[in-house]
Amino acid sequence: MEKLKEKILNEGKVREGNILKVDCFLNHQMDIKFLNEVGQEFRERFKDIKVDKILTIEASGIGIAAIVSQYFDYVPVVFAKKTESLNLDKEVYEAEVASFTKKKTYKVRVGKQFIKEGENILIIDDFLAKGCAAKGMIDLVNQAGANLVGIGIVIEKGFQEGREVLEGMGARVESLAIIDKFEDGKIVFR
Amino acid sequence: MEKLKEKILNEGKVREGNILKVDCFLNHQMDIKFLNEVGQEFRERFKDIKVDKILTIEASGIGIAAIVSQYFDYVPVVFAKKTESLNLDKEVYEAEVASFTKKKTYKVRVGKQFIKEGENILIIDDFLAKGCAAKGMIDLVNQAGANLVGIGIVIEKGFQEGREVLEGMGARVESLAIIDKFEDGKIVFR
Repeated sequence: MEKLKEKILNEGKVREGNILKVDCFLNHQMDIKFLNEVGQEFRERFKDIKVDKILTIEASGIGIAAIVSQYFDYVPVVFAKKTESLNLDKEVYEAEVASFTKKKTYKVRVGKQFIKEGENILIIDDFLAKGCAAKGMIDLVNQAGANLVGIGIVIEKGFQEGREVLEGMGARVESLAIIDKFEDGKIVFR
Repeated sequence: MEKLKEKILNEGKVREGNILKVDCFLNHQMDIKFLNEVGQEFRERFKDIKVDKILTIEASGIGIAAIVSQYFDYVPVVFAKKTESLNLDKEVYEAEVASFTKKKTYKVRVGKQFIKEGENILIIDDFLAKGCAAKGMIDLVNQAGANLVGIGIVIEKGFQEGREVLEGMGARVESLAIIDKFEDGKIVFR
């Protein structure tokens, strides 16, 4: 997606440890008009599949998924929760996720009534790096006996193993921008 | 907002300790078509004010704020973050928030570049109870020297002190549904 690449180049920042910061439009401040274009692009990429529900994960996936849903006939968006809350039902599917940026492992949970057997689930997330968050979400989908029909990623770090891991699990992955490498602090797209 | 009240009565559940669960359409699974109606209603309530930016808080405010923004000329949405992440800039405004449902106090942070002096900020959140989250966000707005122009709440627990606290700080609060009390597990609206 050309406009996304432009935005990454113009507004993104590369920090030590090859961390790309796009918090000015994607995951801290959100450019909602642009996210509508992201939604349109995902619809185009996944135009051949029937989607019953979008699954994402706290926190930065939520706003993206909410806007994307509007391009998939307003299907419900479910977000996996990261913390144990008094408000969460006891009846949950649970999976483990290792976080690269937060350097810890945490559990994600979804209420069982929100992913049902046979439903077609599209996973949406902001980043794909090692694939840990997506793997956790696939685990939740599998526990429910639902069908994973695709994984839509805004920005993929192509030099990490995420895509290989997810495709190895049989998933179809569509990323709107793939970063091949960082060279002297500059971003090189695939 | 009549349709919201209907949805709360039809789809919400009241649990022990007067906890209202609306996770089937608002804060775990999200009904995106309905959230568009919520956005329209907030626009109507706040039609007299100029909004430069919407501020909300992780996690359940994010999806709501993203959709609401579309009714305020797609102004940027900024969400305050609850956890220390490697990806967060060092230059942040920070406030303390006590959580009723999670029984602990935590810090919320916003990158300084995302709330600027003189900007008109509309706060959006899913619930108002004791007002702790909104108070924390007002603190962030004040630190930045921005103008708080309103607080839009989807569901207010009218029997708790949140509104009094926020109005006492000079805020204008608009709630789309106000729960007066729970009576034998039933919801009574104001």
